Amino acid sequence: MIRCDGRTNKEMRSVKITRGFIKYAEGSVLVEVGDTKVICTASIEERVPLFLKGQEKGWVTAEYGMLPRATGERNPREAVRGRSGRTYEIQRLVGRALRSVVNLESLGERTVWIDCDVIQADGGTRTSAITGAFVALVDAIGAIFPSGASLKHKAFPVVDYIAAISIGKVNGTIMLDLNFEEDSRASVDMNVVMTGCGQLVEIQGTAEGDPFTKGELGEMLNMAEVGIADLIHMQKEVLGELGERIGH
Amino acid sequence: MIRCDGRTNKEMRSVKITRGFIKYAEGSVLVEVGDTKVICTASIEERVPLFLKGQEKGWVTAEYGMLPRATGERNPREAVRGRSGRTYEIQRLVGRALRSVVNLESLGERTVWIDCDVIQADGGTRTSAITGAFVALVDAIGAIFPSGASLKHKAFPVVDYIAAISIGKVNGTIMLDLNFEEDSRASVDMNVVMTGCGQLVEIQGTAEGDPFTKGELGEMLNMAEVGIADLIHMQKEVLGELGERIGH
Amino acid sequence: MIRCDGRTNKEMRSVKITRGFIKYAEGSVLVEVGDTKVICTASIEERVPLFLKGQEKGWVTAEYGMLPRATGERNPREAVRGRSGRTYEIQRLVGRALRSVVNLESLGERTVWIDCDVIQADGGTRTSAITGAFVALVDAIGAIFPSGASLKHKAFPVVDYIAAISIGKVNGTIMLDLNFEEDSRASVDMNVVMTGCGQLVEIQGTAEGDPFTKGELGEMLNMAEVGIADLIHMQKEVLGELGERIGH
Amino acid sequence: MIRCDGRTNKEMRSVKITRGFIKYAEGSVLVEVGDTKVICTASIEERVPLFLKGQEKGWVTAEYGMLPRATGERNPREAVRGRSGRTYEIQRLVGRALRSVVNLESLGERTVWIDCDVIQADGGTRTSAITGAFVALVDAIGAIFPSGASLKHKAFPVVDYIAAISIGKVNGTIMLDLNFEEDSRASVDMNVVMTGCGQLVEIQGTAEGDPFTKGELGEMLNMAEVGIADLIHMQKEVLGELGERIGH
Amino acid sequence: MIRCDGRTNKEMRSVKITRGFIKYAEGSVLVEVGDTKVICTASIEERVPLFLKGQEKGWVTAEYGMLPRATGERNPREAVRGRSGRTYEIQRLVGRALRSVVNLESLGERTVWIDCDVIQADGGTRTSAITGAFVALVDAIGAIFPSGASLKHKAFPVVDYIAAISIGKVNGTIMLDLNFEEDSRASVDMNVVMTGCGQLVEIQGTAEGDPFTKGELGEMLNMAEVGIADLIHMQKEVLGELGERIGH
Amino acid sequence: MIRCDGRTNKEMRSVKITRGFIKYAEGSVLVEVGDTKVICTASIEERVPLFLKGQEKGWVTAEYGMLPRATGERNPREAVRGRSGRTYEIQRLVGRALRSVVNLESLGERTVWIDCDVIQADGGTRTSAITGAFVALVDAIGAIFPSGASLKHKAFPVVDYIAAISIGKVNGTIMLDLNFEEDSRASVDMNVVMTGCGQLVEIQGTAEGDPFTKGELGEMLNMAEVGIADLIHMQKEVLGELGERIGH
Repeated sequence: MIRCDGRTNKEMRSVKITRGFIKYAEGSVLVEVGDTKVICTASIEERVPLFLKGQEKGWVTAEYGMLPRATGERNPREAVRGRSGRTYEIQRLVGRALRSVVNLESLGERTVWIDCDVIQADGGTRTSAITGAFVALVDAIGAIFPSGASLKHKAFPVVDYIAAISIGKVNGTIMLDLNFEEDSRASVDMNVVMTGCGQLVEIQGTAEGDPFTKGELGEMLNMAEVGIADLIHMQKEVLGELGERIGH
Repeated sequence: MIRCDGRTNKEMRSVKITRGFIKYAEGSVLVEVGDTKVICTASIEERVPLFLKGQEKGWVTAEYGMLPRATGERNPREAVRGRSGRTYEIQRLVGRALRSVVNLESLGERTVWIDCDVIQADGGTRTSAITGAFVALVDAIGAIFPSGASLKHKAFPVVDYIAAISIGKVNGTIMLDLNFEEDSRASVDMNVVMTGCGQLVEIQGTAEGDPFTKGELGEMLNMAEVGIADLIHMQKEVLGELGERIGH
Repeated sequence: MIRCDGRTNKEMRSVKITRGFIKYAEGSVLVEVGDTKVICTASIEERVPLFLKGQEKGWVTAEYGMLPRATGERNPREAVRGRSGRTYEIQRLVGRALRSVVNLESLGERTVWIDCDVIQADGGTRTSAITGAFVALVDAIGAIFPSGASLKHKAFPVVDYIAAISIGKVNGTIMLDLNFEEDSRASVDMNVVMTGCGQLVEIQGTAEGDPFTKGELGEMLNMAEVGIADLIHMQKEVLGELGERIGH
Repeated sequence: MIRCDGRTNKEMRSVKITRGFIKYAEGSVLVEVGDTKVICTASIEERVPLFLKGQEKGWVTAEYGMLPRATGERNPREAVRGRSGRTYEIQRLVGRALRSVVNLESLGERTVWIDCDVIQADGGTRTSAITGAFVALVDAIGAIFPSGASLKHKAFPVVDYIAAISIGKVNGTIMLDLNFEEDSRASVDMNVVMTGCGQLVEIQGTAEGDPFTKGELGEMLNMAEVGIADLIHMQKEVLGELGERIGH
Repeated sequence: MIRCDGRTNKEMRSVKITRGFIKYAEGSVLVEVGDTKVICTASIEERVPLFLKGQEKGWVTAEYGMLPRATGERNPREAVRGRSGRTYEIQRLVGRALRSVVNLESLGERTVWIDCDVIQADGGTRTSAITGAFVALVDAIGAIFPSGASLKHKAFPVVDYIAAISIGKVNGTIMLDLNFEEDSRASVDMNVVMTGCGQLVEIQGTAEGDPFTKGELGEMLNMAEVGIADLIHMQKEVLGELGERIGH
Repeated sequence: MIRCDGRTNKEMRSVKITRGFIKYAEGSVLVEVGDTKVICTASIEERVPLFLKGQEKGWVTAEYGMLPRATGERNPREAVRGRSGRTYEIQRLVGRALRSVVNLESLGERTVWIDCDVIQADGGTRTSAITGAFVALVDAIGAIFPSGASLKHKAFPVVDYIAAISIGKVNGTIMLDLNFEEDSRASVDMNVVMTGCGQLVEIQGTAEGDPFTKGELGEMLNMAEVGIADLIHMQKEVLGELGERIGH
């Protein structure tokens, strides 16, 4: 079976990661996955939230937004109607995922603010946000821990790569990296976040229509594993030398 | 290994479901899972949200709250500080889970409002809410589709049982149904929602500390499967005759 | 004239006060007055509001809430629509009433948060809240001023009992302790708060339909006096030994 | 005992009611009680709130505000910090009081909006608001029910006069019409609303410090009765011929 | 051409400035320009906003409000619906204008809060607010820098007079000081703020209908210049001796 | 005098307008003025705001936003802290400017929503937004009034070009098109909006420090006139054939 954009079921859309997209941010990326485009920035703030004060640890937190016309129909701004439940869910997911590969002790008493702003949405915005924000995060942390500097805890605070992808079941077929049209017809929708070591950080699977079996879950996980390995390969290429500091 | 409350790793806390807990609601339940206590009500409203108008379908939606002193330290009311991201996430999960076992066409143009209010919280509030709210939902739908009445679509709108449980990895050991103390030390936290047929409706697994392997995921799923089967057995006992209409 | 639930005009509904209802709170009570059920908790916070800082005095404040389905028709949550004028009015009343029997100097620089959450509402929720919250308050203060401990100001901070009841005029007849159905038909609605010494702390009388005379006001006050004496008798029984510290 | 402004205990401050204070409003009044100054307007809207739709009845509702510098220290605007509990309480009181002397059926399907805005506050703002708003209300209703017109229900919708006053206990002495300085030292604070026939519409008495006896309550009521009769006398003088339509 | 109220095109409405209108405020004014009436108060707060802390400078900030019935139709309160964009625009303008004639270093670490509350609106409320608020500002600053006191920076903090007026183009004719009816028909609407020295502090011109030429802009500016000189003349008369300290 | 980026005082930064930047919007543009980058979209909604209902006229409205990291320091999202006064001011300005060149009768009963989202801010964001949004607006209106279609009112609804630019006085020198660094040092800041015919639509000049003379105002206007003519020339080039329909 061939998909409407000509892909096979196991095929990802073309991915492009542009570093240094916004001149002011310590780290910034434009990530494009097919027609989905997300600006990810990482900003350093030299203090931590109240609940961490005095613990000699840092924090990584994320916010997610979407321009009103990122979608087929215009959506009212969240500055007008308030943030939706979906927005809260996504930004919690992104923050949690990135924190899982950062050694907060090594980071020191500072916060990395991740902002993911979708300027065009064609499915997979939350997984693209994680994949892109990771690169912005490494850039920002690289900027405050310049190579050669003696690190307090002797290690670069980013301990592994991380990326995310969606998988779904559409018309009874399991497919990788759904676009918006496929996503809206999917009976099962799953997002998987994995590290460079191939371990799971987050798995969220939802039956929108019919429930699914453990066998199908396994099949989806396998497909995600291959896709995420490809994404991490791209992250490595884009980060180049800086990437070599990860985990050391 | 024995847990602090004397349970084995595969053992659930004691569960009690009390039907008819609030006299005004079409369906209402007090669900107790160990020291976690949630009041679940199901209310019928004879209209649907705007986006469903005129489609001859119903809707099921859920809201979640917690009394300020349900926890060890008092939390400010959400009427004061606004609803948190966590609240949005949970109520979206509960609504999605219950909709997955309701035939919205059979329900007709009406909304079932599910309210889950935690009066005492000792871990597992979201999964307990799903397990309890299902019983309240069946009661409410039973009240508007009295047995013997000729149904428009010839079938009772509830098509299967549904229940949920948490599993986690604490000190390297996988355990069923974490209480608050265990949950706060867990390195992996997973919630699973399954139907009476043993199929998955939702799986949400998060590495709070270290990532986890596909093997561990499988082990957790197996443990969840057994626990949920037990919970659905209790739901059947509590619902008695009314439960026999489910799926017919 | 006999009322629809068989009571005489001067008769209160059955009252039940259950101490220790929520395991985490310093003081907690389930108060039931007929079908009205309110969870009252008292939480100690070891600091005072800004306006009292450095004055060596404590504070008692109250918040009031209602589960969405505590009533015949579901009410939207205040976390969604904001707190109503009615809520503000009630929580101010409850706080004021309880403060009138607490010696704030003896309490020391700490705040007692009273939370009254109605889980089922059949009239008289604000007066039941006061009657129940008093018991929770005594329990919480008892916990931080254990018997035998030498108190800073040499006296237990609670100086007298306090309870409240409603009276109204329905179909031209004056009645004690209105339920919801009577309340909705009442032409006069009055709430009275009195101390163990039989003195007035608060009186709020409102003509919903026709105005009332000074004679009727007197008659209502007399009825309230007897009812409150009965309530305080129950509080004494429930508090037992701890109650003996009040006023000493 | 003579009060700081030279009044005796039973003496009211000087009162001035200026009709037609705002040129656009159907009814408008500047009411001055001592240094307390409130602008009261009554606006007619030709529709009723949702809950009254189709019932052939009108509605009277009130809102209350205070300029930031009406008081000794500047208060933040409620447009900035949200309306306080005190504001809700007062506007509910004002609305309830005025509705008690309006025949809502005679009014027809329209709403009278009462706005009471305090421009200078020296105690007694809520009672002054009621006394002044009544005159604005009569003016507005007079404008839509011109004399000589055949009224649908054959009667002028305003059925009686209404006014309000405060009484309190300061340093053990009961006094009429407290100013701000007296109010802040009062141990009992009471507001009474009465009709032209001398009947009670609202009584709200609060012990700020020590509780009070039934005897003191009676004494305060008597003092209020005389004061309100004086206020209604002034309302009659100010309204002149238009006032003669009240109750007919 | 004669205007509906009998004025010529270059003629301002009658202006009245009443000092000391609110007894509590350090400075307060009722400014009346035709039927437009604005209460302006100036309040001193002995601290500065966060962004100025420790810089040994003061701040002047303004807020603007309108009573609900200041206009022909009742407007909902901003405490209910939130502040409008128009309100934000006006209060930013008023604050900016007044700051331009205050030496913030001389003022010292304190804030002057300007409140402009429109009680009756007939066009030109923002310009009237500036003209009136200036007088209140001088009174408030005069109160904290009493004549004869040795000033820290040796100069009175107010360095020049300031006033504002509107000009517009109605039916092809340029006119000074539009009232509401003229304003609603104007094709060009301009507000000009000028100092006692005749220099520009703010110019805001908007084509509501047809664009305008540079020549018309010049004509409008000339008309504004004359009007503002008249207003400043009145401010001088009203301020009397206190005004002589301005700029010295 | 040469500016820090090498420009002369009368020289604009390089400008780039990219049409069709967002695939879903009826009209969309990325406008770049030096390092300032704004995404402008125009969305058609087939209904008008309440206040225009039934008047056979359309509406053009604008909203403005800024990504948190568009600036040197991260700004909190307006979805979190609410929209600022500055945001309200800018979006009102953009809407007003664009409406001045649209024949709302010809547009018919529909709304054009303009969204201007700044992704990188280096001064002049509001003027760049107007210049770019105009092109998006023409594209969107072109899409619903395709060339050749017989128009209801026989004319293309866009009647003239419009663009905007800033001018300021920095260190005593008047300069065109200030960047952020210049803007923060400017003593006078002016924004001018002009049509293709060279007429004024809006002029907003503010003395941030010292007031300015009428002569300086004239000099700034002349500079703006030349700059805007250049911008409109670029708009014409970018719009090509579609631009020829404007005004016909």
